Amino acid sequence: MAWYIENGPKEETVLSTRVRIARNLEDMPFPNRMNPEQEKETEKLIENTFLSLNISRPRSNWSIVRLEEMGKMQKLALAEKHLLSKRMLEPGCGKTLIINKEENLSIMILEEDHIRVQAMSAGLDLAKAYKEATDLTYGLEDKIPMAWNDDYGFLTACPTNTGTGLRASVMLFLPGLIRTDRMRYMSDMLSKAGYAVRGSSGEGSKVMGYKVQVSNQLTLGLSEEEILRDLQHLVENLIEKEEESRSKLLQADKLGMEDKVWRARGILENARRINYEEAVNLLADLRLGVSLGLINDGLSLVSLNRVDTNIGNASLQQISGKELIDCELDESRARLIRDELKGANRRIR
Amino acid sequence: MAWYIENGPKEETVLSTRVRIARNLEDMPFPNRMNPEQEKETEKLIENTFLSLNISRPRSNWSIVRLEEMGKMQKLALAEKHLLSKRMLEPGCGKTLIINKEENLSIMILEEDHIRVQAMSAGLDLAKAYKEATDLTYGLEDKIPMAWNDDYGFLTACPTNTGTGLRASVMLFLPGLIRTDRMRYMSDMLSKAGYAVRGSSGEGSKVMGYKVQVSNQLTLGLSEEEILRDLQHLVENLIEKEEESRSKLLQADKLGMEDKVWRARGILENARRINYEEAVNLLADLRLGVSLGLINDGLSLVSLNRVDTNIGNASLQQISGKELIDCELDESRARLIRDELKGANRRIR
Repeated sequence: MAWYIENGPKEETVLSTRVRIARNLEDMPFPNRMNPEQEKETEKLIENTFLSLNISRPRSNWSIVRLEEMGKMQKLALAEKHLLSKRMLEPGCGKTLIINKEENLSIMILEEDHIRVQAMSAGLDLAKAYKEATDLTYGLEDKIPMAWNDDYGFLTACPTNTGTGLRASVMLFLPGLIRTDRMRYMSDMLSKAGYAVRGSSGEGSKVMGYKVQVSNQLTLGLSEEEILRDLQHLVENLIEKEEESRSKLLQADKLGMEDKVWRARGILENARRINYEEAVNLLADLRLGVSLGLINDGLSLVSLNRVDTNIGNASLQQISGKELIDCELDESRARLIRDELKGANRRIR
Repeated sequence: MAWYIENGPKEETVLSTRVRIARNLEDMPFPNRMNPEQEKETEKLIENTFLSLNISRPRSNWSIVRLEEMGKMQKLALAEKHLLSKRMLEPGCGKTLIINKEENLSIMILEEDHIRVQAMSAGLDLAKAYKEATDLTYGLEDKIPMAWNDDYGFLTACPTNTGTGLRASVMLFLPGLIRTDRMRYMSDMLSKAGYAVRGSSGEGSKVMGYKVQVSNQLTLGLSEEEILRDLQHLVENLIEKEEESRSKLLQADKLGMEDKVWRARGILENARRINYEEAVNLLADLRLGVSLGLINDGLSLVSLNRVDTNIGNASLQQISGKELIDCELDESRARLIRDELKGANRRIR
């Protein structure tokens, strides 16, 4: 089962946890300075090393995806699931994605760094994601000498990753803080404390569907454990504030909230055409309704996760198996949402 | 069963037909010039005459409602159903409404004229409404000498009703003509041909929910049969034009129409709070969907008629048995609509 359709801790407020570790081979230029032979050689070395690890067995649990052999649509669909970074979409030989069946654990080869190990987890679970990412990283480190400096730690293409090479991030669902207008203040505070605050599609993206990504900026001067512990505390604090805000919203106008979330459901279950932004916003209202127990007839957060994951343009085209123009996208998005929400009703009721 | 929850001819385009006949007693001033004794005397005479007719039996089929004894809310609820005119809401002794159980046949006593007989019918049925109104009128005329002039015909308080005293009107549902922007032209044409074109709440009211009332202006110089025949032809012509316009809308963007009507349904079945205007507009979209067969899962026009009749402020208060403030009205309107639409689903599916 794909990781994003599992339940996770604190799932009413935390959609997912991600841990990413960057590593580079010793005695090999960083990816932006490599020639094609070096790219091929590096790809081969990492792939073969991975295949020699216990973790890669059974082999059927893993896919090795060569990006130059993939169609644009397939790549975009992986990017929509946060399984490929934007940089991996750019042309270049040797770029490879190794990914497990549950889609929670992956290695991007020849991204900004030679190796980027990524582990994802439903809800708030930094310990689990960190363990999975490090198990895989340690396996590779045991067999491949990595670029390292005694003063700085692990060396990376961009100095912001140097040191631990660790970036931990959580995707938060913060309708309470956003609708009570407290998010701006929280963002400033988080930035000052050394955290990056972004929309759901990463750097430079706007906040849609009340989704806010928070990640550590500092990778140097702190141990991995300190980074994770600080982020954990910070997220727990945000969860508390978010819950306060939701209670306030409910106290101020419970019927108004019920109206909003049930209307969202009515539209999503009935629309014949819906664009991405409207869908994301209505799904967020619906998620809030389920999280608050205002909608309690069996619709689950996991159903909403499944919808969220599949309504991007590329995912819709991948599901339908062909290229779609704008109005066809809106139609197939509406159909997918109807089927999933009504299916959820049938399964439970 | 109330008349407005029956099916009627051409109900996809004609919501209802109304025939009203004005009469005044000979040797009695018009209502605006009467003294209280004359008012009492006139009321008594008309009421007793009515009770002596065969049509008033069984007595249990009829209510005799004295307006000075009624609460404001009850009166407004009757007005929302077009069973009382605005004039009848003004204070004044002797004003009485005689009405049958089906609410399709009534006599207003001491409205602008001494007697206003009104017959309503579902869909387009001028012949039926006219027959019911005249049967009652003839009964009264047989026993009460009515004001009459050999040159003009029946005399009325306002000269615009003099002659036949007949006003026939149809309430049309014209989303096609309105949305293709052809209604303005049709209105001009109808006015020039001597017809009044109004919104659903009568004189001076704006068009809401694509509802347009058309009635004859001329009561003098034409026979009753000519008035009805001309209106019938005109309405048949409007129906044809409306059907053309609906086909055009469907051809231009069928999916867009489906989207609009299903969204309307989704919102109406799920909202927890809805104001009158939004409800009327969404119910009109839903009616269009049912009329066009885009919604064909058993929801009937009759269900929509029942909702339309009950969502006015006064009707909602009458149903709930107490005065409601604005936000309570919006809440109880939303509940009534949900119950009716979901009830309709249960009954049919």
